[in-house]
This record gives sequence, structure tokens and C-alpha cells, in this order.
Amino acid sequence: MNLNIALLPGDGIGPEVIQQAVKVLNAIAEKYNHSFEFKKASVGAIAIDETGNPLPDETLQICADADAILFGAIGDPKYDNNPNAKVRPEQGLLKLRKSLGLFANIRPLTTYDALIHKSNLKAEVIKDTNFVIYRELTSGIYFGEKQASEDGNEASDICKYTVEEIDRIAHLAFKAAQVRRKKLTLVDKANVLETSRLWRKRVAEIAKTYPKVNLEYLFVDNAAMQIILNPKQFDVILTENMFGDILSDEASVISGSIGLLASASIGSHTAMFEPIHGSYPQAKGKNIANPLAAILSAAMLLDHFELYEEAETIRTAVEKSIELNITTPDLNSTNHFSTTNVGNFLSDFI
Amino acid sequence: MNLNIALLPGDGIGPEVIQQAVKVLNAIAEKYNHSFEFKKASVGAIAIDETGNPLPDETLQICADADAILFGAIGDPKYDNNPNAKVRPEQGLLKLRKSLGLFANIRPLTTYDALIHKSNLKAEVIKDTNFVIYRELTSGIYFGEKQASEDGNEASDICKYTVEEIDRIAHLAFKAAQVRRKKLTLVDKANVLETSRLWRKRVAEIAKTYPKVNLEYLFVDNAAMQIILNPKQFDVILTENMFGDILSDEASVISGSIGLLASASIGSHTAMFEPIHGSYPQAKGKNIANPLAAILSAAMLLDHFELYEEAETIRTAVEKSIELNITTPDLNSTNHFSTTNVGNFLSDFI
Ligand SMILES: CC(C)[C@H](C(=O)O)[C@@H](O)C(=O)O
Ligand SMILES: CC(C)[C@H](C(=O)O)[C@@H](O)C(=O)O
Repeated sequence: MNLNIALLPGDGIGPEVIQQAVKVLNAIAEKYNHSFEFKKASVGAIAIDETGNPLPDETLQICADADAILFGAIGDPKYDNNPNAKVRPEQGLLKLRKSLGLFANIRPLTTYDALIHKSNLKAEVIKDTNFVIYRELTSGIYFGEKQASEDGNEASDICKYTVEEIDRIAHLAFKAAQVRRKKLTLVDKANVLETSRLWRKRVAEIAKTYPKVNLEYLFVDNAAMQIILNPKQFDVILTENMFGDILSDEASVISGSIGLLASASIGSHTAMFEPIHGSYPQAKGKNIANPLAAILSAAMLLDHFELYEEAETIRTAVEKSIELNITTPDLNSTNHFSTTNVGNFLSDFI
Repeated sequence: MNLNIALLPGDGIGPEVIQQAVKVLNAIAEKYNHSFEFKKASVGAIAIDETGNPLPDETLQICADADAILFGAIGDPKYDNNPNAKVRPEQGLLKLRKSLGLFANIRPLTTYDALIHKSNLKAEVIKDTNFVIYRELTSGIYFGEKQASEDGNEASDICKYTVEEIDRIAHLAFKAAQVRRKKLTLVDKANVLETSRLWRKRVAEIAKTYPKVNLEYLFVDNAAMQIILNPKQFDVILTENMFGDILSDEASVISGSIGLLASASIGSHTAMFEPIHGSYPQAKGKNIANPLAAILSAAMLLDHFELYEEAETIRTAVEKSIELNITTPDLNSTNHFSTTNVGNFLSDFI
């Protein structure tokens, strides 16, 4: 298969981990006779430094022309505590999602037996946890109209959803549940929000066309508890943009390391794959960042093109590296390996 | 001291746990020569059944006339999965908060050594956790304008904040931090929301008048992780309404039992005290509900009137009951006690 892959390494540790993912994808291409072409483009704080724009037109064009996008991370602390900054790295990511119509963010959550002791949660609570979060990604309060009054005395953000926005991701989530354990949990705040009531109404409607899937509802506050109290109860979680942001980061603590969690953002025309960890600026340039999340994101990319065996090969290699303790300091306090060495081990193993 | 206390037992297990709290308050009144007068009023699903209104005018009047309010719980499953219900029990609670101006919801989070093993989190992670969440309670997306289009094709909720709404709770939170470990963490989503940027701007401004308090910022998604990754880092958490709803329920898992967590909702004229657990309809009438959260809410009520010794007496009694395993089934799988018996033990002990 020929694939054109746009590479958006971004900020902080993004470039280092993306480099390892490319190494691994090249090893896969060689082993299975595929041709993967990579085109690099800039995004985030580094793009602001270079061009003043967190998502330069050229980057958007490269992404639009690509079959898929591999994304590193964005964000720089110099923007975080400045409420007056007019341009922010995050705007690049948000605009990318919106422009490419990447409406479904998919985050799988599983545990690795060899790492189960790393989690702050007790082993018996998390062992065999296996769920996936479907987070709506191009609407809700992220993209509704925002206002700040001239006198600086008030501000507002609108959360808005249409039936179409709810339906398209709901169908994806139900389809996923159908080939998993057939349970879908809609997380909302229908006892307070009008948008949540619309979600509940539509999802109940759509559920009728997936009669084998068992639909449950959970208020977001309760969901935030249940993810820690009993994570094994979940199969597919479906939720809106802001709640999904919070819950998927919360759920990452189950695994014991955010350095292991991959995600896909799916649209009707293209798809983007990215580790869920941030730009981790403290680790930048130190060759200590965990590349596994980026590498597992590359595996999700292969899955997306139905290269299931290839994706599985990556996952097996990752499991091996964890088993053998060939891992970065976040997973390995004694005899640890560098970002580059973990990437080398995996590409050699493949 | 003479206190007029409005009792709003509400739904589910509310009446059973409030009864025990009253028992304990009566024991305190006797021991310390106070006079507590209780006036009962209905709220929630039970008020809808009786009057069609989740917050009857009479209830509101009783609350407005009282020195403080002791609240049980509201909610009934018959309303949860009905997106078309025009009247909901939760409206009673929201209207009560708004009408009485209860703008600050305060939820302390500590652990009990004797119960530390009950938590899903590892003992070493949670031992000595001690923080308090200040959640804004009368504004934000809960109370902004809501719309559902006539054709049912879209819906919206507005999140709005004014400087006054931010300032009054920020001052309370800084004052609390000043007499605690002098750290305040503002949780927001300033990289996306205009309202969060207003919060950040105001809180930074107000921080200047509390120079001894160390102010930190955390994005809400990161906060949802940090609460589990390292709960001991927190002293006072300040946040807006919706984020506070999610994070305070999430934080409840630290304690090992939601049946232990109390809260206060403070306004400029009155204050309300309530356990954070819900109406737990499955347990209703079975005399198995844990009354400790309601009883510890009564202790917060006494604190509010500066009856510190009295409040401490309740807390000591609660600790004793936990030490002696005189607790309900949620805390005690073998030789457990009924709701009533726990209340009796505590009032006798006092
Ligand atoms: C960087 C930020 C805007 C983004 C979000 O909130 O969506 C991030 O937290 C994420 O989840 O991808
Ligand atoms: C019942 C509900 C409306 C309420 C809220 O969301 O505020 C509850 O979850 C709470 O936290 O007191």
C-alpha cells in the first residue's frame, strides 16, 4: 500500500517521539512491502515562532493532501499564564480539527500486565480494563461563539450541538460497540444542560438501529467517579467535547502511564493520529520522553487503513519492550533506556 | 446559641440520614446548652409528587427564614431517562441555590486512616491527603440561557461569568488558603474558554491582595489526572460550577466512601449543608444508608456558626465509630450496623 503521511511533530517532546514512530513505520514498510511517504509540516508554538500562525496555510494544505496525519504534541508554557495572548498554540490544533472535520476522537484504554503495578489504582481494580472513549471533537463549547465584554466585566462561551453533529459520532460509537462487548455508555449532564438532553434524545433514537447494543446513561459527575470506582464496567463511552476532554485524561491514570496512550481523530475525509500526552516541555531535548504513545498512534493509523497485521506487529513489539524493560524512565526507574534506544529496539525487533 | 435550622430531607435516603443528623445535633444541643429548632420542608421529587413543584414557595420561605439549612438528597430515577420531563427534582436544588444566593460550594477532602484500605487508590498515594474544593455554585453553564430549537434540530447552553461572581468566591478561597497550607490552585480551561480567561485574569489580580498564598493554574483535563496521580499536592482548589461538579465527585473516590463526604454551600445571607452522596434510591427505606456524610455536614454547620468545639465533638465521635467498626454496610462488610444504630451510637457517645 502507498500512504502519504503528513508529519506534524509540533512542540516540546513532539519531534522526538514522532521520529521514533517514523522509524517504526519504516520498519513496517520494509517488512510488508509498503511505501510510506512522509511530509513534515509545522504547527503549534513552533509555527507561531516561525510564521506568527499556529497553523500555517501550507501545513493545512499538506494535511488536506495527505492520506493521514501523524501528530506529536503542542503547547508551550510561555502562553499558558498569559490571558492576553492573542495567538496560542492550541488554536492551531483546534483549527486543524475543525478545518479537516475530525469529529470523532477515539481513545482506547487498556492495561499491560507488566505495568499494572505502576498505576495509582489497585491492580485488582484495573486488571483487564478495556474500554474506548468516543469524544466529539469539532463542536460544543470549544467552537461555540465566545465573547468578552469591552469593559472586561464579563465573558461567555456558548455550547451548541446539532442533531447531525451528534448522529455521526453516535453511529461510529455504536458500530464500535457492536464488534466489542456491546455496551455503550452515554455520558452527559441531562439533568442540567439542554444540549445534553438533545444528546440523550438522539442517542436513544439511534440505539434502535443497533438492537444488540445495550445503551446506558451516566451523568458526567458520576462518570468521573465510576471511571475510578469500577473501570471494568465500561466498553464504549460516548460523550461531547468538553466532557470527553476531562474524562479521557482522567481515564489515562488507569494505565499507569500517560506515555502509553494513543488516540485517533477521525473525519469523513481524513484522520489524524496522536499520542495523548502533551508537549512535556520539561523533558524536551533530553531524550527521555516515552515514544510508545506515538508509536501506538502509528499502529492505530495502520488499523485505520485495515493493515491489521502490521498494526498487531507494532503492538507485539511494544509489549515485548515493556516485558523486557526496554523502556524510558517514566516506566523504568532503574536501568532505563533513551527515547532513541526504545525506537531502535522496536524497529529492529520488527 | 439559638439556631433555626430548616430541614430539607428530600428524596431517597435523604430522610433517613437527615434523621440521624438531627439526633446528633440534639445531643450536641443538650451537652452544650444550645437550642436548635428544626423546621421540615419538602424539596425534590417528593415535592413534585405532593405539589407539582420541586421547590414549593413554602419551602423557600422556610429556608429564607432559617439561620441555616440541612439538606438530604434529591433525585428519582423516574426522571432521569425522560428527556421530555418538564419538571425535574434537580430544578428544586438549582433554584434553591440561586434564590438563596449560595454561591460557594465547599467540599473538604480528607482520609481516615482506618478506612484507607477501602479506597481504590493505593494507601501511599492518598494517606494524609487534605484539600478543599471551592466550587462556584450559582452561575456558569448551569444558569446561562438554554435553548432548544423548535424543530428539535439543535440545542445550546450559555456559560457566562461576571467579575463579581468570580471575585466573591475567589476571596473566600484565598481566605481559606491563608489559614491552611497557603496554596491555591485555579482550575480552568483558559486555553479554550473565554470565561476561563476571565477567571484567570481576576484571580491573578485578587492574588495580589493575598501575598502569602501561592497561586497555581491547572487546566481541567490535567486536574482530572492530578487528583488521582498526586492528590497530596492540593490545598485549596478553586473552580467554576461545571468543572467543580465533575472534579469534586471524582475527588470523592480518594476517601474510599462517598458516604463520608460533607459539603457546605455558602451565600451572603444564609448557608446550606449537605452530604455529597445522592438520593441512592436502591437503598431507600432499608436502613442501610451511611449517615456519616449528613452528620459531618451538621458539623460543618456548627463550624459556620463558630461552634468549633461542638463540631469537633461530632468529628471525634465519627472517628470513634469508624475505629470501632460501628458503621453501615458500605464501610463494613461483616458485622455491620444500621443507619439508625450508627446515629444512636454517635448521639450516645456525645
Ligand atoms: C490542547 C487542548 C486544546 C486539547 C483539548 O482540550 O482538546 C487537549 O487537551 C486535547 O485533549 O487534545
Ligand atoms: C443534582 C445536580 C443538579 C447537582 C449538580 O450538578 O450541581 C449535583 O450533582 C451536585 O453536585 O450537587
